[in-house]
Amino acid sequence: MEIIKTTRAMTRLADQWRSQGLCIGFVPTMGYFHEGHIELMRMAKRDADKAAVSLYVNPTQFGPTEDLAKYPRDFDGDCAKAASAGVDVMFAPDSSEMYPAGACTFVAVDSELTKVLCGSSRPTHFRGVTTICAKLFTIVKPHFAVFGQKDYQQLLVIRRMVKDLCMDLEIIAHPTVREPDGLAMSSRNAYLSPEERKQAVCIYQAIQNAINLYKKGERSHKTIVEEVRFVIEKSPSARMDYIEIRRMPDLADPTQ
Amino acid sequence: MEIIKTTRAMTRLADQWRSQGLCIGFVPTMGYFHEGHIELMRMAKRDADKAAVSLYVNPTQFGPTEDLAKYPRDFDGDCAKAASAGVDVMFAPDSSEMYPAGACTFVAVDSELTKVLCGSSRPTHFRGVTTICAKLFTIVKPHFAVFGQKDYQQLLVIRRMVKDLCMDLEIIAHPTVREPDGLAMSSRNAYLSPEERKQAVCIYQAIQNAINLYKKGERSHKTIVEEVRFVIEKSPSARMDYIEIRRMPDLADPTQ
Repeated sequence: MEIIKTTRAMTRLADQWRSQGLCIGFVPTMGYFHEGHIELMRMAKRDADKAAVSLYVNPTQFGPTEDLAKYPRDFDGDCAKAASAGVDVMFAPDSSEMYPAGACTFVAVDSELTKVLCGSSRPTHFRGVTTICAKLFTIVKPHFAVFGQKDYQQLLVIRRMVKDLCMDLEIIAHPTVREPDGLAMSSRNAYLSPEERKQAVCIYQAIQNAINLYKKGERSHKTIVEEVRFVIEKSPSARMDYIEIRRMPDLADPTQ
Repeated sequence: MEIIKTTRAMTRLADQWRSQGLCIGFVPTMGYFHEGHIELMRMAKRDADKAAVSLYVNPTQFGPTEDLAKYPRDFDGDCAKAASAGVDVMFAPDSSEMYPAGACTFVAVDSELTKVLCGSSRPTHFRGVTTICAKLFTIVKPHFAVFGQKDYQQLLVIRRMVKDLCMDLEIIAHPTVREPDGLAMSSRNAYLSPEERKQAVCIYQAIQNAINLYKKGERSHKTIVEEVRFVIEKSPSARMDYIEIRRMPDLADPTQ
């Protein structure tokens, strides 16, 4: 596996691959790989000739009080895991590559899509995500990019951006990869104490309960949301950000 | 000369050219070609293997009270002129191609660069320009794009965007092409009555006077600006938007 640090070298490699008629599959990441990342990489390698992964902890998608400084990192471990998954190139730029001196350009999806759910408590988050993904797509020139469904709002936002900006790539969704007890895998799970980790499964249990209620015929949004809240609140470590039912694919409030 | 109306067909042609190792030169336009446009096209054809021109009157760069509806158009005449200039493909999409239903994504350069001069009286103009140029660059995949220096602020804004978004193309500036009396060529000159057209030369004369003052050793911004204002105000049809001296390449106020 090749490791590339500059945008110029990455773009040249992508041009070379494209001129050879090779299909490029791409997985953008912030590193600290778990099995979820690895599955996206395997999918990229399976469906493309060349699998490219980017590893960059993007500062503009973190809010001022968020966890940018302590975000977990393990570059050598990540490289070994990506290589084992069959990745052909790891693009690991530093910030001077991704944000040239004086950088002041951003890409934003300006709709409900970025204002509700996570967009409400993290007002600049999606702007950071769309800006970095637009740059990465421009540099890596993939035919498709794979995103995990765990960050479902992010997936919808990226799809909207790609369509609106006439970007010539497909966005592929990969199902959420879960721990044996059902917790969605996440690099940020490393922040949890053993006790918190045990309680975190409440999110999965609550979603399962909601699905079961729906399957049994329950159609009241309020009842379903209350059930989710009830299950989560049984975990003393849980702090609620939001529980909402939203419409696909624009995340509109279905009750309005 | 090929005429292409869809983003998909344009992207496929660009991919084909690139995979053949051909260099693509690009001139984005809003049509109603004058000799200024033609010179940009000749430059693109001279320095590239394939010259691509886009013709699209982009609504998002017009303000609500501006001249979108009456902007001059002459598609057949434009095609004949572009073909004569050696253009290989004319990309002439309609709005459903450039702004898919529900489009809500924009690209913005968020700095002084877009807030001063024309950015001050046309607050959403540059956001419209950067959004459409980002899309056009993505679709046409040029190795370089040519912009006229007449729209100098636009040139600087586009250069900033290209650098910030790691776009793999060069932005080439072409000197302003002028009428025999010195007026910069512009599609919008068609709006002028014969009398207004005669008086419009005052802009060129005022700039020449400012240059001469500078060459003679004048360094007071105020004196130079007052000279420009004096020359322009002699024309009864002239309405002043701004007269300012600004620093390169960030358009900062050099007196601050």
